[in-house]
Amino acid sequence: MAGRPTINTVAAAAGVSRQTVSNTINSPQIVDPRTRQRVLAAIEQLNYTPSAAAAQLRTRRSRVIGLRLQPETDGINGAVLDRFLHAFTVAAQRESYRVMLFTAPDDAAEIAQYSQLVAASNVDAFLLTSTHAGDPRTAWLASQGLPFVTFGRPWTQLSEADRHAWVDVDGAAGTRLATEHLLQLGHRRIAYVGFPRSADLADERLSGWATAMADVVSAESREHLARHVCDGVDAGSRAAESLLAESEPTAFVCASDSLALGALSHVRRIGQRCAVIGFDDTPVAAAVDLASVAQPLTQAAEAAFDLVLAQLNGESPSPRQYLLTPHLALRGSGSVTPDPSTSRTESE
Amino acid sequence: MAGRPTINTVAAAAGVSRQTVSNTINSPQIVDPRTRQRVLAAIEQLNYTPSAAAAQLRTRRSRVIGLRLQPETDGINGAVLDRFLHAFTVAAQRESYRVMLFTAPDDAAEIAQYSQLVAASNVDAFLLTSTHAGDPRTAWLASQGLPFVTFGRPWTQLSEADRHAWVDVDGAAGTRLATEHLLQLGHRRIAYVGFPRSADLADERLSGWATAMADVVSAESREHLARHVCDGVDAGSRAAESLLAESEPTAFVCASDSLALGALSHVRRIGQRCAVIGFDDTPVAAAVDLASVAQPLTQAAEAAFDLVLAQLNGESPSPRQYLLTPHLALRGSGSVTPDPSTSRTESE
Repeated sequence: MAGRPTINTVAAAAGVSRQTVSNTINSPQIVDPRTRQRVLAAIEQLNYTPSAAAAQLRTRRSRVIGLRLQPETDGINGAVLDRFLHAFTVAAQRESYRVMLFTAPDDAAEIAQYSQLVAASNVDAFLLTSTHAGDPRTAWLASQGLPFVTFGRPWTQLSEADRHAWVDVDGAAGTRLATEHLLQLGHRRIAYVGFPRSADLADERLSGWATAMADVVSAESREHLARHVCDGVDAGSRAAESLLAESEPTAFVCASDSLALGALSHVRRIGQRCAVIGFDDTPVAAAVDLASVAQPLTQAAEAAFDLVLAQLNGESPSPRQYLLTPHLALRGSGSVTPDPSTSRTESE
Repeated sequence: MAGRPTINTVAAAAGVSRQTVSNTINSPQIVDPRTRQRVLAAIEQLNYTPSAAAAQLRTRRSRVIGLRLQPETDGINGAVLDRFLHAFTVAAQRESYRVMLFTAPDDAAEIAQYSQLVAASNVDAFLLTSTHAGDPRTAWLASQGLPFVTFGRPWTQLSEADRHAWVDVDGAAGTRLATEHLLQLGHRRIAYVGFPRSADLADERLSGWATAMADVVSAESREHLARHVCDGVDAGSRAAESLLAESEPTAFVCASDSLALGALSHVRRIGQRCAVIGFDDTPVAAAVDLASVAQPLTQAAEAAFDLVLAQLNGESPSPRQYLLTPHLALRGSGSVTPDPSTSRTESE
């Protein structure tokens, strides 16, 4: 066998197709382990080097996507972005793309990093997380003509020309799903513990609960059944305590698992029979039997990668925006029915 | 101001030192926010582009370190590697290095990825996690002369020539610390719930407990006070149940937070007064008031990055191995004293 070995030489030696050789290198997860061993043995025997460097020179692509690692918060809710990062890395690698990490304390510093990463020409595109109203990052990337996608929708109303590619999960559908489940169990006084009101996911998650509750209690009662606090376990406990004292709810829908864990700890501590549902289905929720709204993170990561890849390939995919629907991870804390002896009848 | 702007031009315009400009780009976390804004404004006004691409061409370095993302397990213990990854990314960025992620289902596939990443010349060095006895990855990297460091020691006895750079946390010191704390509280029948015995961290964590218990109970009693199970919350519950039935322990030291959470849930469910200490100080531990052995992850990540950097700079650092000592994150579950009415006296 003369000359430099190619993917075809390897395929022939291993008795598999070109695609299987490619998969063994780029997506080994999907190749049968025995087949993989055979291909790896052939690669080693022939001293085959995948021509990624040559491909990069030819296409002028680094096949690298930049992603800013979020600073850690309380370690509970951060698990969502870590899981998304895992799924995105797997999706990217299937197409021989890699994920490059960087950190930045705020939006301005993140933009400075974009600039540096592109100047060093080692990043083709960016994935952004934690979008917010008036986000300067997307405007900057668009002004530079750089390919990007956000996990999180733009919370500002954008003109048709400014609409960029994004993937997000419908938070209102999530809290609505949780609230409707509790209504079906017979709960009527269902409280909501969410974040300080703002024109982004805070108000969105609130709205799902409010919609489901609209036919059950008056707008005034809803005011008394909602709390808007900063995220955290202790804040969730205190909100539950004050809600129980003021409005006697029999169930809680919470905007995060941290808040829900606080509420759950409080009701368990005082021996009150209440249902609690959190948001994000984090490992903590599974560990303490907390029902929670679950984001389809693998689906979101795959859609986000597809949107990046389409831009890099010069395609105009349609749709360029995906709003995915969460589901309810039902566990013990979400199955508690109202106590018939103490439940107050709602006659508004 | 003629010519291409340099770091000196930016420093002069912002009224800061060269180092502050460099920090603003590479380690913005350590720069005062107002100073940072001033430097970023100067960078934008002068249209300064950091010369990373030029530096890369000059040094033939990509300034990229490859790291395989571990597949997710139960989501509780995986948090440790995610936190290490965060800290390592921050340490690397301080020296203008980046972290590139890839995935691989097993060691052989991970080695194939190394080969590809080096061939495409976009990775200078590798960071390995989850080392184990007979690890083929380190031997392969050493045979190729590629710089690398492992988070986790080699569990095989290596010859002097084969000793590579590593950073690890002393697991035996961790379980010993937990056990000695419980002994000081007056516990004597302290059980151990760990992993199936193997010549790596399973036996190491077991040994710390066994050492602390050596003067308190006989070797035979220790046998009855230890369980070796696969990691998981349910396995921890079952182990605690069987230990309570057979050996009446008043406290549990566990090799992971998953196991400890299972043990803690069991004793809380049956209303038994028992102390429980886990391992890794995960977000779940903090959330459920579980005491846990905490690894110094930031220190480990910084030491690991320093060991990589020294190799890339052609230095021979001494030491090339760091065994760091964990500490005890003390919470409610670790402060439970033995119940005087039920505690059995040990008279062996």
